[in-house]
Amino acid sequence: MSSRFTAPVVLPCDPACSVVRDGVVDVDDDGRIGYCGPAEAAPMSAAPVTALSGILLPGLVNAHAHSPMTLLRGMGGDLPLLRWLNEIIWPAEAKLRAEDVHAGMVLGSLEMLSHGVTTSAEMYFHPEEMAEAVLTTGARVVLGGPIMDLPGLDWRAMITATGRWIDADGLRFGPGERIELSFAAHSAYMLPPEALRLTAEAAAARGALVQIHVAEAADEDQKQRVEFGSVPRLLDEVGLLDGRVLAAHAVHLSDEDIALFAARGVGVAHCPGSNGKLASGIARLADLRAAAIAVGLGTDGPASNDDLDLWEELQLAAMLARLSTKDSTALDAPAALLLATRGGAAALGRDDIGALEAGRWADMVHIETDGFAFATGLAVPDAQLLSNLVWAAGSRRVRDVWVAGEQVLADGESTRTDRRKAAEAAKESAARLR
Amino acid sequence: MSSRFTAPVVLPCDPACSVVRDGVVDVDDDGRIGYCGPAEAAPMSAAPVTALSGILLPGLVNAHAHSPMTLLRGMGGDLPLLRWLNEIIWPAEAKLRAEDVHAGMVLGSLEMLSHGVTTSAEMYFHPEEMAEAVLTTGARVVLGGPIMDLPGLDWRAMITATGRWIDADGLRFGPGERIELSFAAHSAYMLPPEALRLTAEAAAARGALVQIHVAEAADEDQKQRVEFGSVPRLLDEVGLLDGRVLAAHAVHLSDEDIALFAARGVGVAHCPGSNGKLASGIARLADLRAAAIAVGLGTDGPASNDDLDLWEELQLAAMLARLSTKDSTALDAPAALLLATRGGAAALGRDDIGALEAGRWADMVHIETDGFAFATGLAVPDAQLLSNLVWAAGSRRVRDVWVAGEQVLADGESTRTDRRKAAEAAKESAARLR
Ligand SMILES: [Zn+2]
Ligand SMILES: [Zn+2]
Repeated sequence: MSSRFTAPVVLPCDPACSVVRDGVVDVDDDGRIGYCGPAEAAPMSAAPVTALSGILLPGLVNAHAHSPMTLLRGMGGDLPLLRWLNEIIWPAEAKLRAEDVHAGMVLGSLEMLSHGVTTSAEMYFHPEEMAEAVLTTGARVVLGGPIMDLPGLDWRAMITATGRWIDADGLRFGPGERIELSFAAHSAYMLPPEALRLTAEAAAARGALVQIHVAEAADEDQKQRVEFGSVPRLLDEVGLLDGRVLAAHAVHLSDEDIALFAARGVGVAHCPGSNGKLASGIARLADLRAAAIAVGLGTDGPASNDDLDLWEELQLAAMLARLSTKDSTALDAPAALLLATRGGAAALGRDDIGALEAGRWADMVHIETDGFAFATGLAVPDAQLLSNLVWAAGSRRVRDVWVAGEQVLADGESTRTDRRKAAEAAKESAARLR
Repeated sequence: MSSRFTAPVVLPCDPACSVVRDGVVDVDDDGRIGYCGPAEAAPMSAAPVTALSGILLPGLVNAHAHSPMTLLRGMGGDLPLLRWLNEIIWPAEAKLRAEDVHAGMVLGSLEMLSHGVTTSAEMYFHPEEMAEAVLTTGARVVLGGPIMDLPGLDWRAMITATGRWIDADGLRFGPGERIELSFAAHSAYMLPPEALRLTAEAAAARGALVQIHVAEAADEDQKQRVEFGSVPRLLDEVGLLDGRVLAAHAVHLSDEDIALFAARGVGVAHCPGSNGKLASGIARLADLRAAAIAVGLGTDGPASNDDLDLWEELQLAAMLARLSTKDSTALDAPAALLLATRGGAAALGRDDIGALEAGRWADMVHIETDGFAFATGLAVPDAQLLSNLVWAAGSRRVRDVWVAGEQVLADGESTRTDRRKAAEAAKESAARLR
């Protein structure tokens, strides 16, 4: 059934980051947007009206996550990276069962919805459980099981399985096309070039996205650099950059790497919080943007960076961009908001989410404006309103969330899944993994 | 009347950042702590018991703020710094009346309490209104009117007025000694050396704290550097470092400056969020800590950095410390938590707040643990519990706050002041200032 939403402020997240006062969003029967704009220009409609009191904007896109790691959140405290992986994370992951991934993903998905994040790009074990979990909470996901060369893991089998799954269920499926399947090649340092080549071929044959970690830590890919000059060049040589690619992190890129990504239309998931907590470095956001590369924001896994709150990434992206360029205007509030919405969608190669525009899915977030961030009211200039939303409000007052027009969060609580039961299941799984 | 609090987890914020399981805090009639520790070692008591279900810790200390600027939050969007000051902030501040400062400070104080911040160090106009506002909300404050050399401002008069006020009301006054008066010398670049000298004398005569901005932006104090070598050296030469001093920002310090601050016992208010948003730079936190300088965290004014949430500063302090030292263990969760509590108190030269210890004021925060941050439960190792609190929970679930043993926040709402009425007053003031 079609429906109409009204709000004193609607942010379509169009390229100009317009602020629509007294706005209307019409949602069609199929869950897509029919109209978004000022009330005065809205078409006649007999649809039932939901009158919202705050700000309506598109659901945020978390462009890089490993959300089932909610089970491992905070484990190992703040050990150095390699000890943390060797002593804590890998031993715990070795014990992972399918039901653990399901429990962790349900919990992570609920957490993201409560922060206004409607879509996440996921790379983790037991991808079929991730899909099930997201169909339970009603969020949206782009996911793939990790293609890695590790003892006990068979990268050939994972490429084949992913391809077969797509061939069986389609690239996108589920109500509102909530699930998109992708190839999640872990990285050039965890895979031989042959695996990258076969991944590229399998993905290209199906129009699928390849997710891959690129140049996260300064030293990780030294071997590849010696042999191929740089990881981006290696990825290009094996044909991986010819298709849809999402490069996560992309911290240590040369000017040539950036030019190559731009030429090949590679999207980047910028993960400032993870890169900060792990001391990986500061990605060259200003240069990526200047090269017109599609950039989104990612939280990375909650075991290391710790809540799944994309608003914090957005604030951090601005601070790090400003510090690293010594320019306090390097990323303003509208630009930061677009990274987390439209930009994330573009980085995933999606033009059907990340903005409130006719034809896109009605993935929407309603932010209540009765908190401290908006204490001076909504009748302020647009720039101030966006500043208040982006720098001060963040996820604090996310009240309602819709995915493909279906309300999945109402007054801060899931309409589908009992948060406490989900936490109980996750707690049991987590206890077994310790 | 004395009272007893119990909680499954109590964090006294002692130097080791101990985690007390099944903890007890006894509060005496006068609002000070009588006992803090495990239940099994607690003295016999017939006092009424408040049984809390989450984590009890000391109220956070915001070591540098200009909280009445809640009225100006987000004004001017993200203009470059000098245009923002010249075109937006200074014209607005020129219109400030006493009642505006009162409204802005009430709002800022309520916001801080809702984030678990019980004390703030404030420098702003109409200090008597700030004191009134804080006595209204029930928070704690260290405040001073700005001593500045600007047209329309008389720095001699402000020094004299501050001294007279202390002589009349005492250095600390109000219920639970909630108000501490201080001398708020703006900076070496906004004052002649003679003003700094007279401020130092007036403060020393009364044992009062001097708050002062130091080395925030790279270029601000070039004149002083040419003449005196560095701002810290200038402050030392005029005698200002002999007394209690809180240096805000302290971004651009040389090794000699740090050694001088350490030798003179100067406290530092580290403001990573403000320094990031304004692209001022990254203070040398690791070096300040290595020199055993007392370091706290400050939000700075909400006009530029935008909410008054010290938990965000604490997370940011860790990320920037790690990025700037390339060491992912540079500031772990316990160290970050101590910066925001015990460290802030020490930076202000206070040993009566910032920790739950016998003899200190019972300024306490109760954090509910039913949210996503603690989904895997409280029965996890101490390091994981602290990680979950510091990196994931933050201010999200601050439910209850006490100052000097009096509950001032209950289930997230002020026990004393209507938040919506306060916002209404602030909105009226803000509209007049635009
Ligand atoms: Zn990752
Ligand atoms: Zn300041």
